[in-house]
Amino acid sequence: MDIPSKEGFLSNIAYDSVIFGFSGNTLKILILEYHNTGFFALPGGFVKIDEDLNDAVKRGLKERTGLDKIFLEQFYTFGKTSRKDSAAMETILKANGFKVDKQSWLLDRFISVAYYALINYEDVSPQPDELSDSINWYPIDELPPLIFGHDEIVKKAIQTLRDNLERKLVGINLLPSKFTMKELQQVHEAILNKKLRRTTFQRKMLGMEILERHEKQFSGKAHKAPYLYSFNKVTSGQQ
Amino acid sequence: MDIPSKEGFLSNIAYDSVIFGFSGNTLKILILEYHNTGFFALPGGFVKIDEDLNDAVKRGLKERTGLDKIFLEQFYTFGKTSRKDSAAMETILKANGFKVDKQSWLLDRFISVAYYALINYEDVSPQPDELSDSINWYPIDELPPLIFGHDEIVKKAIQTLRDNLERKLVGINLLPSKFTMKELQQVHEAILNKKLRRTTFQRKMLGMEILERHEKQFSGKAHKAPYLYSFNKVTSGQQ
Repeated sequence: MDIPSKEGFLSNIAYDSVIFGFSGNTLKILILEYHNTGFFALPGGFVKIDEDLNDAVKRGLKERTGLDKIFLEQFYTFGKTSRKDSAAMETILKANGFKVDKQSWLLDRFISVAYYALINYEDVSPQPDELSDSINWYPIDELPPLIFGHDEIVKKAIQTLRDNLERKLVGINLLPSKFTMKELQQVHEAILNKKLRRTTFQRKMLGMEILERHEKQFSGKAHKAPYLYSFNKVTSGQQ
Repeated sequence: MDIPSKEGFLSNIAYDSVIFGFSGNTLKILILEYHNTGFFALPGGFVKIDEDLNDAVKRGLKERTGLDKIFLEQFYTFGKTSRKDSAAMETILKANGFKVDKQSWLLDRFISVAYYALINYEDVSPQPDELSDSINWYPIDELPPLIFGHDEIVKKAIQTLRDNLERKLVGINLLPSKFTMKELQQVHEAILNKKLRRTTFQRKMLGMEILERHEKQFSGKAHKAPYLYSFNKVTSGQQ
């Protein structure tokens, strides 16, 4: 089997996506495992010659997650020469039954534009790509070692998420449309990797005037049920 | 004359630099004018095959400004297909006496990684590159129209500077090592494009505990001279 043709793609440029989800109080990332190699990496891909970069990334995300509308943001472009690992790429291609030509474009150096995506964990059934066995959620503190310098990409994605937590209200995209104050606090704690004081957190969130509180629905246990909140329209519009 | 050879450079990837300086109460940007074309653009360049992306950008900045140590930050990678303008590139190459081959790598589509740099205006004598007549400072509200989608790059650079003004204390890099409170306020006003209240600004800056106040030097007019400040060591270290 011949290597996928370079025709139609830009050279030397790729993208990688750090796809965050939130489940069981834990922030998780989607990681691919390549067939018969024991190699793990972020999902990513290449840009077609006549395709906008952002559209290429959306296309790849749709293929992996089935989702069309995702909070997606470019955060950094990684361009160190040390990221190149032709040996790993050769191993992956051979393990997938490709004939490897040393001149192949896939063995070239790639500069990678990295994006992070925030998705509601419940919404997706992740799909592996043609070179990989599986795509699975891994808690951010239990990631396998990643090839192609992807460890550094994940590290910077988590830092960006922390930096943006308040300014861009990233929590919105990791929660269902209605949530409890406790769930919102858990998302913040998972991103910041530290416990927050309940009273301080609640006062701060309410003070930002971004939350809408919903009426409790009547039920036998209504007096015990917590209030449900959603983000108000102005806030959602900013995303 | 033949077009500069592609050998040794990555394909389809370029960088552009938005170099900010501050002078006469105004935020300015360095803009190149190409020989005999009336075309204006940001200074930029290409990445060598064996060179880290960030090193390529530093190399280019050194060539244009003579400066080695500059506050430099990547802020976005521009990848729309509409950025490509082969006709403008062809005009530039012909105006510089190159024979243009339609297959030339320079007429390809480039994805551009954009950086902004902050420099002390007094420190530089900008140098044009081999294709350009001049490189000059332009106030951000008096820029000529730019080719290759560089208008959009400048717009996003200014927005990034505003967003980062407090978090990253970008003003540090636009001022000499000692400055008055008034000068610091003028930098903030130029970046935000709005007047700030003197008392509020002063209280806020002093409250951040990032400034060191220096003794006034004795002189006949000492009682009129304003205090000089510098950023304290912890702050400077973060840059």
